[in-house]
Amino acid sequence: MTAKPDTATAWGTIAHLGTVELFTPELDGSIWFFTEILGLTETGRRDGSVFLRTYDNYETTSLVVTERDQPGMGPTALRASSPEALDRIERALGESGHEVTWIDGYAGHGRTLRTSDPDGHETDVYYDTEWYDAPERLRPALKNQPQAKPNRGVGVRRLDHVNYLAADVLANAEFHQQALGARATEQIQLDSGKIAARWLTYTQKSYDVVYTEDWTGSTGRLHHIAFATDGREDILRACDICIDNDVFIETGPHKHAIQQTFFLYVYEPGGNRIELCNPLTRLVFAPDWRLVTWTEEERKKGQAWGLKTIESFHTHGTPLV
Amino acid sequence: MTAKPDTATAWGTIAHLGTVELFTPELDGSIWFFTEILGLTETGRRDGSVFLRTYDNYETTSLVVTERDQPGMGPTALRASSPEALDRIERALGESGHEVTWIDGYAGHGRTLRTSDPDGHETDVYYDTEWYDAPERLRPALKNQPQAKPNRGVGVRRLDHVNYLAADVLANAEFHQQALGARATEQIQLDSGKIAARWLTYTQKSYDVVYTEDWTGSTGRLHHIAFATDGREDILRACDICIDNDVFIETGPHKHAIQQTFFLYVYEPGGNRIELCNPLTRLVFAPDWRLVTWTEEERKKGQAWGLKTIESFHTHGTPLV
Amino acid sequence: MTAKPDTATAWGTIAHLGTVELFTPELDGSIWFFTEILGLTETGRRDGSVFLRTYDNYETTSLVVTERDQPGMGPTALRASSPEALDRIERALGESGHEVTWIDGYAGHGRTLRTSDPDGHETDVYYDTEWYDAPERLRPALKNQPQAKPNRGVGVRRLDHVNYLAADVLANAEFHQQALGARATEQIQLDSGKIAARWLTYTQKSYDVVYTEDWTGSTGRLHHIAFATDGREDILRACDICIDNDVFIETGPHKHAIQQTFFLYVYEPGGNRIELCNPLTRLVFAPDWRLVTWTEEERKKGQAWGLKTIESFHTHGTPLV
Amino acid sequence: MTAKPDTATAWGTIAHLGTVELFTPELDGSIWFFTEILGLTETGRRDGSVFLRTYDNYETTSLVVTERDQPGMGPTALRASSPEALDRIERALGESGHEVTWIDGYAGHGRTLRTSDPDGHETDVYYDTEWYDAPERLRPALKNQPQAKPNRGVGVRRLDHVNYLAADVLANAEFHQQALGARATEQIQLDSGKIAARWLTYTQKSYDVVYTEDWTGSTGRLHHIAFATDGREDILRACDICIDNDVFIETGPHKHAIQQTFFLYVYEPGGNRIELCNPLTRLVFAPDWRLVTWTEEERKKGQAWGLKTIESFHTHGTPLV
Repeated sequence: MTAKPDTATAWGTIAHLGTVELFTPELDGSIWFFTEILGLTETGRRDGSVFLRTYDNYETTSLVVTERDQPGMGPTALRASSPEALDRIERALGESGHEVTWIDGYAGHGRTLRTSDPDGHETDVYYDTEWYDAPERLRPALKNQPQAKPNRGVGVRRLDHVNYLAADVLANAEFHQQALGARATEQIQLDSGKIAARWLTYTQKSYDVVYTEDWTGSTGRLHHIAFATDGREDILRACDICIDNDVFIETGPHKHAIQQTFFLYVYEPGGNRIELCNPLTRLVFAPDWRLVTWTEEERKKGQAWGLKTIESFHTHGTPLV
Repeated sequence: MTAKPDTATAWGTIAHLGTVELFTPELDGSIWFFTEILGLTETGRRDGSVFLRTYDNYETTSLVVTERDQPGMGPTALRASSPEALDRIERALGESGHEVTWIDGYAGHGRTLRTSDPDGHETDVYYDTEWYDAPERLRPALKNQPQAKPNRGVGVRRLDHVNYLAADVLANAEFHQQALGARATEQIQLDSGKIAARWLTYTQKSYDVVYTEDWTGSTGRLHHIAFATDGREDILRACDICIDNDVFIETGPHKHAIQQTFFLYVYEPGGNRIELCNPLTRLVFAPDWRLVTWTEEERKKGQAWGLKTIESFHTHGTPLV
Repeated sequence: MTAKPDTATAWGTIAHLGTVELFTPELDGSIWFFTEILGLTETGRRDGSVFLRTYDNYETTSLVVTERDQPGMGPTALRASSPEALDRIERALGESGHEVTWIDGYAGHGRTLRTSDPDGHETDVYYDTEWYDAPERLRPALKNQPQAKPNRGVGVRRLDHVNYLAADVLANAEFHQQALGARATEQIQLDSGKIAARWLTYTQKSYDVVYTEDWTGSTGRLHHIAFATDGREDILRACDICIDNDVFIETGPHKHAIQQTFFLYVYEPGGNRIELCNPLTRLVFAPDWRLVTWTEEERKKGQAWGLKTIESFHTHGTPLV
Repeated sequence: MTAKPDTATAWGTIAHLGTVELFTPELDGSIWFFTEILGLTETGRRDGSVFLRTYDNYETTSLVVTERDQPGMGPTALRASSPEALDRIERALGESGHEVTWIDGYAGHGRTLRTSDPDGHETDVYYDTEWYDAPERLRPALKNQPQAKPNRGVGVRRLDHVNYLAADVLANAEFHQQALGARATEQIQLDSGKIAARWLTYTQKSYDVVYTEDWTGSTGRLHHIAFATDGREDILRACDICIDNDVFIETGPHKHAIQQTFFLYVYEPGGNRIELCNPLTRLVFAPDWRLVTWTEEERKKGQAWGLKTIESFHTHGTPLV
């Protein structure tokens, strides 16, 4: 995983995760969850979609929620690190035979390059973006913060990562590594040699996107999206908020062995799995980070402090199949 | 401070602090502060007063807020540990020459014995009380908790203590010790021998009421009331909430040397000083606890971790004089 | 559960839990665990026993550890609230037909009344006690604290509670209620009507001793003893310390539904189950607290945030049978 | 601050801060502080220097401590993101007229390019580095962590940043920006137009190095170095550890307005100022981050929650002058 600063797909070509779109059959319930429980701010509604943001996002939008018959996910949008980086990505995708189209931006983004990963998850890349300008009532006390911290719900800081399900984990991970400049930081390798999951980063966070094997043969599905909290105590507080508001807790709180993230998994009322995550101050700085591979044997030990992985973690994805 | 279980004013005669009444010239602002910032629940309005409760109070009311020209305080109500204890307090007050009257209870209390401390702070004692029955939307997930934890603001657990200003600290402290069975746990003694502040408890919390010297010659004034949070992180979160909502922070967060409480002092919009406090799990269990006396020299070191006591801490009380 | 201040066994007769003795077949390992992992301080060794203390204990000793072939427990010592209270307990035990003997105190205690609960757990009561005087190197910065906070391990604050196994939960709980003045705060009642567990308190902590049904027909066994930490973060930190030091984590961290305690269960090297617990600032103040009864149906929901109770929690006790 | 990925000094050329060397007139005291209080691990001694590491450093060394008559600092070493990046830095420094020499690496580093900033702080850049291989007793439970988490002291995660004093803040900041690819994220600008402090980053942390004006006319001095903790609670725990171990707390804990870091400043026994810092999960992701400028007026408000900046913060630097 040597840094390749002179190639089109070097690490650093993508600056960070921008937005994700979720589908929900229960629009009101989902919006209640994201605003009242997680503490996101609704910034507007357009064409059947609701636009939401976390308090520390310098851009306008973190999450787009759209009503559909089934839960699931729409496009993931990534911000390129420069206009030139966006062009290089276009060329790299073209040269490697991926179909690309230019679309009008949404969610505050400028012109946007749309492609999809091999599994069919739509993937957008943009550079131009609208910076968030908080209205008076949401103005923060500190000028280095885009918005006042929410006074309701968990008050999550940012959209942290997306965990896709895919039939072929390796092919999809390599798409992010080769075409988009992601680095692989950790993975699960089965005794058969097959890669069952891989964690990838565009940043110095230890992961921004994850691929986990979809055992159902379906494509384009979502395992979960995650929002980062300020600290672990926000997740413990979230647990109490969830039980008092009938939000289903699937598992947690606990600490992942892989990536060491402190986690809580819940289902939003539309059925999508949502993670609240906190990595403490852990970051991956080594430009030549050595990919950590976990074996089946090691995975049997469960999570970091011994919690066994819950069965539904292997069976629940959206859309449901 | 030996336990005196067979006398009228033994420790244990008062079970705990019940309610406090605050006066405010800015009723709407004060109610906004207590509900939106601290996360108290309003339970009703009657005769110009607003009734509020913290989420872990088994009784109906923690705080009564009443509009007045000036900030300041009304009665403090204490719950006796039994009907017999209430009678014993009546006798003890009578024998020691304190005026008492029986009044109708308010704030969910039954018949109430009203007296006042030597400085003129009205002090009520009651035994019969209404247990809180949460309405459907505030019903908790856990049956050993009276109410769902608030999903907005700090979400304070309980009214923790009252800090009175008084011309004669010792006389007032001894009133609580002799007539009401309080124990003194810590105090400040000036080089002159004068007691400048004393901390008193009815429970195994290290203090429930405090007297601090009022340098103005006024009587019946309030230094602050305090609400306990679940943990210290709730106070750190409160700091961010306060600055983003223009709530004035007077001092903190820091740890008191005396009593070791983690603290934050703010002013509610009506002008009363409010403390958010957290003692961690510290409790005083010794039935023969040895009163801790702090000297002027020791107080000069500032708070536990070195913060100097802010000047306004010695000058601001309500009503303002 | 009305307070009965005029009877020998009124609540308040016992002031607090003093010490517990544990047996271990691995003395060195157990002492390493209590000092290096939990951060207790060893104060001396005598007659094959090692004396240990938590940093916020005003008495000299919190825990006595003694080498034996099997893990398990020796006496639990309770401090009476006054010399008169100790006498009243002697009378009450005698009148109710319990055998009592006076023994010389150990662990810094004066003359001690020894009896046992119906299940055979030795129970000591004392009033006279030695206050801890920290040696120079352990002297605290704050004079209201008995000892400097440990700079190694978890740094637990106090011995918090003892959970006994007993063939007949109700009989043993009633012994504490009737002879020793404990209050019952929560219990589990099976559909058959049988009480399967009961939580009892002498203080305003919500429990000091617990009885859980022993399914093996053995007597005098231990389920666990618990140490309270300052905050929840100390328990999360403890998790990392445990895995890096090969201390077995049985279950947690999570929050109990019953009593709402944040918990972690580990086994010390001698085989005894040890809980690290944190109740936040939760206390039980009502003198007429209404016993909370949990049904089988309610228990099936698992712990507060959904964790299922681990099987070994129902099968592991010491000594092993 | 547009990303300049094709120039020698693009952001990303430096991967991260590697090591800092501190001088101390009290070697034993300083080493006691770094190992027993902060929880660093000593890895060896060579040529009068002691080599120390934080637990989450993938390289061997975080801090080098060397005995000298006066406190102060030696070289700061930065890791380049690739061998090519190291070469580009050499060219860029040469072209801009900076003197450079190649030296043998120390502290586990390979061949090292040595230069100095305009103020005379020695600055080293290396790429080759030795990865840490923990000895058996320090082996972590989780394979994605280089070392077991320390069981003593604060247990800091990493060397976080260096704050230099410099006569000309702007010139020194621009050296890092132009020759080394740093990005400026925040600064203080006096009413006169002069830049009094600037915060710079090589990573997605919001700062790695800081320049603050040295009012004394001296050169090459240190304001402080900082170590990041896992969470804020580690800093609160550190406060207690410091007072019980006679470590001088200069100011804090509190939250900086600039960069929002939760902080505690102490002096190690050698006299150097050390910060314990925690940014929660705050990171700067925007490739075109807009430099935040704080005015004199804004600075008068004090820190984020109102703490006034302590006088010694403007007068204490090492070496003392």
